[in-house]
Amino acid sequence: MVQLSLQQAHTLAVECLLTNGCDAANAQAVASRMVQAEGDLCHSHGLFRLPWYVSGVKSGRANGKAKPAVEQLAPAVVRVDGDGGYAPLGQEIGHHALVECTRHNGIAALAFTNMFHIAAMWPEVERLADDGLCAMAFTASYPYVAPAGGIKPLFGTNPMGFAWPRKDAPPLVFDQASSSMARGEIQIAARDGHDVPVTAGIGPDGEETTDPNVVLQGAQLGFGGYKGASLAMMVELLAGPLIGEFLSIESQVDDANSPQGKGGPPKGGELIIALDPAKFGDADGFLDHGEKLITAILDQPGTRLPGARRFVERQKTPKTGIEIPQSLYDDIQGLL
Amino acid sequence: MVQLSLQQAHTLAVECLLTNGCDAANAQAVASRMVQAEGDLCHSHGLFRLPWYVSGVKSGRANGKAKPAVEQLAPAVVRVDGDGGYAPLGQEIGHHALVECTRHNGIAALAFTNMFHIAAMWPEVERLADDGLCAMAFTASYPYVAPAGGIKPLFGTNPMGFAWPRKDAPPLVFDQASSSMARGEIQIAARDGHDVPVTAGIGPDGEETTDPNVVLQGAQLGFGGYKGASLAMMVELLAGPLIGEFLSIESQVDDANSPQGKGGPPKGGELIIALDPAKFGDADGFLDHGEKLITAILDQPGTRLPGARRFVERQKTPKTGIEIPQSLYDDIQGLL
Repeated sequence: MVQLSLQQAHTLAVECLLTNGCDAANAQAVASRMVQAEGDLCHSHGLFRLPWYVSGVKSGRANGKAKPAVEQLAPAVVRVDGDGGYAPLGQEIGHHALVECTRHNGIAALAFTNMFHIAAMWPEVERLADDGLCAMAFTASYPYVAPAGGIKPLFGTNPMGFAWPRKDAPPLVFDQASSSMARGEIQIAARDGHDVPVTAGIGPDGEETTDPNVVLQGAQLGFGGYKGASLAMMVELLAGPLIGEFLSIESQVDDANSPQGKGGPPKGGELIIALDPAKFGDADGFLDHGEKLITAILDQPGTRLPGARRFVERQKTPKTGIEIPQSLYDDIQGLL
Repeated sequence: MVQLSLQQAHTLAVECLLTNGCDAANAQAVASRMVQAEGDLCHSHGLFRLPWYVSGVKSGRANGKAKPAVEQLAPAVVRVDGDGGYAPLGQEIGHHALVECTRHNGIAALAFTNMFHIAAMWPEVERLADDGLCAMAFTASYPYVAPAGGIKPLFGTNPMGFAWPRKDAPPLVFDQASSSMARGEIQIAARDGHDVPVTAGIGPDGEETTDPNVVLQGAQLGFGGYKGASLAMMVELLAGPLIGEFLSIESQVDDANSPQGKGGPPKGGELIIALDPAKFGDADGFLDHGEKLITAILDQPGTRLPGARRFVERQKTPKTGIEIPQSLYDDIQGLL
């Protein structure tokens, strides 16, 4: 493993992105997102993704010099057109527009379109909750999950994120796939020769299996069965047809038909809904009221809030730094 | 069983509510909701509930002559104060305000407060989709579901409803509990001596069980485990603290402390979010785009859309009428 301070990780990522076709604004935004994830020890959204981001720019699919633009589509609807670039710079711009629009209207929506690689959504919703708002986020990706009763992949793993502002504490945040397992977890089980739970997915003929390789050839299942599949369908409609962006099956076709070939993150949309609790009739009480629920959760032994681990790690990594595998470090050095 | 036409069922329900303390507007609204459910063969939200509604009015807890009022809390936030009555009349009034507010702003929220018995939410969201909007709904009830890692009931079964407008077809609608099973299904299993799946709930000491009686003494579980519990928590915050209404645990305390005693539906809030797809940048394309997804779902053998059964039954019952148990019919006659 290679030890890096957060600052070193950020400098390395920025340098690598600049060398490979990103302008400064995009390189800073993408690097910040990855290092933020590393700082929370969410390695799967960290520097691990850097070679992938680079490959998308080098192939010419993703615009490393994207200039995302905000448009007001309706009094409470904002859209950011990502100009074919990566999500982080557009998300940075969109955040401020959404906060302003939500504080004025009480509720507002932000649509991200024409962007590559909408990654974990907890940074977006957490940041909105840091600004005192309640937020939900939805994104679709590649077809991996079967519809209820079906056996062929149709929906993405389609996560839904949520954040609630807390009193004197970091926000309550979750960001969870509609699928029973994350795609990456199944891939890791396949690599390491482990079984997966029978709820994870089905084989190509629809049969039950605990073999991750068979699931990867077949289809993943929604969490809790048909109910998770319903959520995946909802997310697909909100992050696709509602905002004029790809369905998961369309994202796959777009990737397959790209003249630059595959090799970078997929294109897709994201919808964020933000609500200002101060505009819902209990401006003075909602924070304490939320704490009453959270206290009741934490009073039960064995419980913890979703996202709590991230906040713990985040306190440590500015001092301890992070570790990345030597092989990843070498790959990144090879891209400089 | 007793055969009734939909009109007879409606007349019977109105008469029963009028006799027992409701005014005409409330009786009509509550009766219409119940008969709508009967017409879709959703008996659990049908006339089965009539004696329960009556008991709440007779005890003095619910206001049978409620005059719900609409307030505009922010440009895109509407609230209906239910004046301590049953939900249907307030929902009728709120629907129109929400549609207008959503068409203007692109997205809007409607909070229902100070109401008894928020029942199934598919009628609200389906009706919004009939008006061309996409809608989500959230409501909390009594504490039945344990938080992730905990063993004591804290969240309601907290359903989430969703509707998407379709082209030349009834809306796509789901309305599903965050719990693995509906409370009523577990009660029926207990009555009939059947086991429940091990995912349904846990006993009072947190142990696994398939005995519905033990689950009823213990706690239900979220669907798909911790992810369903996260949804239940989200719904609890949206339908409670956000809008200044009860948490599930508060609804229980309110019921226990009521000077009129228990015996009617519980008090609670509901949040509806409506989005106008015509205001999200693809006004001409979103309907066809949604159909592309729905066609891909239905092209897979074994699939059906959630809510599809209701639409089939709804075509039949105006001709065939409905059936209710003789015992229920006798109970209702006893209330006239």
